[in-house]
Amino acid sequence: MPGLAIDRQRLLQRLGELGSLGEVFEGGRTRLALTDADRAARDLITRWLEQTGARIHVDRIGNIMAVLPGRSSLAPIMTGSHIDTVVRAGAYDGCYGVIAAIEVLHAFAAANVQPEVSVAAAIFTNEEGVRFAPDLLGSRVMAGKLALSEALAARDRAGHTVADELARIGYAGSALSDESLPACFLELHIEQGPLLEASNVQIGVVDALQGHSWWQVSIEGTANHAGTTPMELRRDAGAAAMVLATEIMQAAAQKGTPKVATVGCISFEPGSINVVPGRATFSLDMRDHRSDELRRVESMLLDAAQGLETRGFKVDAKCISRAEPVTFDGTLCAEIERTAADLQLTTRRMVSGASHDAQMMTHLCPSAMIFVPSHRGISHNPAEHTDPDDLLRGAEVLLHTILRLQTTLGGFDARPAV
Amino acid sequence: MPGLAIDRQRLLQRLGELGSLGEVFEGGRTRLALTDADRAARDLITRWLEQTGARIHVDRIGNIMAVLPGRSSLAPIMTGSHIDTVVRAGAYDGCYGVIAAIEVLHAFAAANVQPEVSVAAAIFTNEEGVRFAPDLLGSRVMAGKLALSEALAARDRAGHTVADELARIGYAGSALSDESLPACFLELHIEQGPLLEASNVQIGVVDALQGHSWWQVSIEGTANHAGTTPMELRRDAGAAAMVLATEIMQAAAQKGTPKVATVGCISFEPGSINVVPGRATFSLDMRDHRSDELRRVESMLLDAAQGLETRGFKVDAKCISRAEPVTFDGTLCAEIERTAADLQLTTRRMVSGASHDAQMMTHLCPSAMIFVPSHRGISHNPAEHTDPDDLLRGAEVLLHTILRLQTTLGGFDARPAV
Repeated sequence: MPGLAIDRQRLLQRLGELGSLGEVFEGGRTRLALTDADRAARDLITRWLEQTGARIHVDRIGNIMAVLPGRSSLAPIMTGSHIDTVVRAGAYDGCYGVIAAIEVLHAFAAANVQPEVSVAAAIFTNEEGVRFAPDLLGSRVMAGKLALSEALAARDRAGHTVADELARIGYAGSALSDESLPACFLELHIEQGPLLEASNVQIGVVDALQGHSWWQVSIEGTANHAGTTPMELRRDAGAAAMVLATEIMQAAAQKGTPKVATVGCISFEPGSINVVPGRATFSLDMRDHRSDELRRVESMLLDAAQGLETRGFKVDAKCISRAEPVTFDGTLCAEIERTAADLQLTTRRMVSGASHDAQMMTHLCPSAMIFVPSHRGISHNPAEHTDPDDLLRGAEVLLHTILRLQTTLGGFDARPAV
Repeated sequence: MPGLAIDRQRLLQRLGELGSLGEVFEGGRTRLALTDADRAARDLITRWLEQTGARIHVDRIGNIMAVLPGRSSLAPIMTGSHIDTVVRAGAYDGCYGVIAAIEVLHAFAAANVQPEVSVAAAIFTNEEGVRFAPDLLGSRVMAGKLALSEALAARDRAGHTVADELARIGYAGSALSDESLPACFLELHIEQGPLLEASNVQIGVVDALQGHSWWQVSIEGTANHAGTTPMELRRDAGAAAMVLATEIMQAAAQKGTPKVATVGCISFEPGSINVVPGRATFSLDMRDHRSDELRRVESMLLDAAQGLETRGFKVDAKCISRAEPVTFDGTLCAEIERTAADLQLTTRRMVSGASHDAQMMTHLCPSAMIFVPSHRGISHNPAEHTDPDDLLRGAEVLLHTILRLQTTLGGFDARPAV
């Protein structure tokens, strides 16, 4: 289907326009799920979707789906992402994939071409999980990994439920997710890491997504006078926490198990310069794309905790979030690679360190992701940046992969549209 | 002078009575310097001092001095401590030494004996330094290590000055410190550490006091996504801080340099479970009774900071408080030991880990300290506890050392009273 193209100027301009919603004084934008800023963004996205002539519906968890019906009865090729953000976010995370999906629909409309296989754009609710837990809420419900009733009952810190907030902003839809079950799913996203830029590669073909294991570890020792308590008679909860945390992070840095480990938060009590900490609490974020390695580092953590118990500490180690690694569809990845090669773009296979809606979609249909470089790997930060040329390249790979799938889709276990 | 004795019941009862002033709902007492609770304690102490017949005066920094005049013109033998407390304090820190000093004066009065050498009790202002900086304020001014005007101008967090608060509670005295410059100074105190109890010794003869070096260390790295940033591309300020802090603490635990090291406070920014810390800030409390070892660990810290700078971190290491180690008077220590031996009590020489007014008094006159066991070494805590028998023993050693000094004082460089 020659003649279909991404409108570079509109793509970039819309990223700026969407990015201006929810801007905060301190810099960046804070557009948490189901807030007024999110409503404004949803309204804007809906107007843009309407311009493509797609059929729009909102499902019961607030996911927005827009389908450009194909000539065949095959289930749609779906692409999309999210428009909710973290606090003081950049303008690209999620939004880029959504705006590029709309561009794909525009490309068909502008060329006045009806697709053979339906093409659908999806905008998922509460991907970031900053306001409501768990994250990936919309895609999680769609994938059947979380009951709709449970998702609707989730509350933010102020006690508001997802159900109430969806109704308040006018996005409590009635569509059944099943109406748009896709044949396959593609998500275009900024890398949020430094690998593509560092290796000077234009397109990342994401064939796996790391699993994560998040822990809150609390160690109780004995608070005491920092001047008068000899080192050998201390039960210093802070020192124990720092040794344990360093051990896990050094295992990651030196042995690669886990792939990455991070202590993002730590605090000591009572928290006086001249008092030996009686309690230390820290978070541990461990990720690996290999299930067994993730389990291995969890064992390592629990063994270390037990070692501290035998030395008289009390340790409370709680797993607060966990997701198994995901493998994306090999055939889809190969299609992306072929498309990029046709467009004379360089590619590399890679693992996504972050979570994405695509990982939930793997439970429904063959899925894969396309990454473009993130400048200096910075993300979840107002300084998030991707070169406009890279933004265009990623959207072109998305469009042309979907065009290629129009003809090769028979190779998948494509399900008929209901 | 036989017949002079400590009144066990009054000693214990007064510890309870003084300890009830400033009690807080959460447990313990909070009697910060120059508050209403401190005023009540000062009023109570003054009434008790009046009962001994001593001449009482208050100097310009609010130190309360009570002198029982001797027959000779020699400068007084002084003993004392402080009655201000930390937040949620125990009942013994400082107060024990003050009440025992009053008991010494009572012992002379009860036996109707005039001392050969004057005996003075001292209650120093703002020893803890919780409300006003620096700590040891009253003894520091008396020792000539801080200008009176500077001490009077010190402000608490609410902006109140020492001068205003002294006037408000009625303890802005007019006496010149010189009027009661002592021939020697003894301070009786709970150990605030576990050594005496652990070694089953009744009396600690304190021949030195640790110096301290307090630092605030801030490390700046690069905040980044915890899932997508490979370990080798991170500049993790939190990980760097934990390694540096652990290094210093392990040097203390394994090599004894410094004698003790403590990280009491730590925080990471931005402080999210899934963000690599861009900034880490922690406190470091290092103490040693050897000047050169204290300097050695300070060099170690600065070298480690420089090492981090060469790896691309920015490090800001600020010394926020520093005191050289103090050596107490050998002759006085020997007198305490002989006294304890006469009373058939076990003793050991020891180093004070905490700061005390006696360390300031060494600048004025031969000084030393007597320690009694602290149960489990707990101090600066409502659970602070010393066995009543130990409290009595310490007060008896204080009284009988002062009685011994009545005859041996010629051995000191005793100055005539002015």
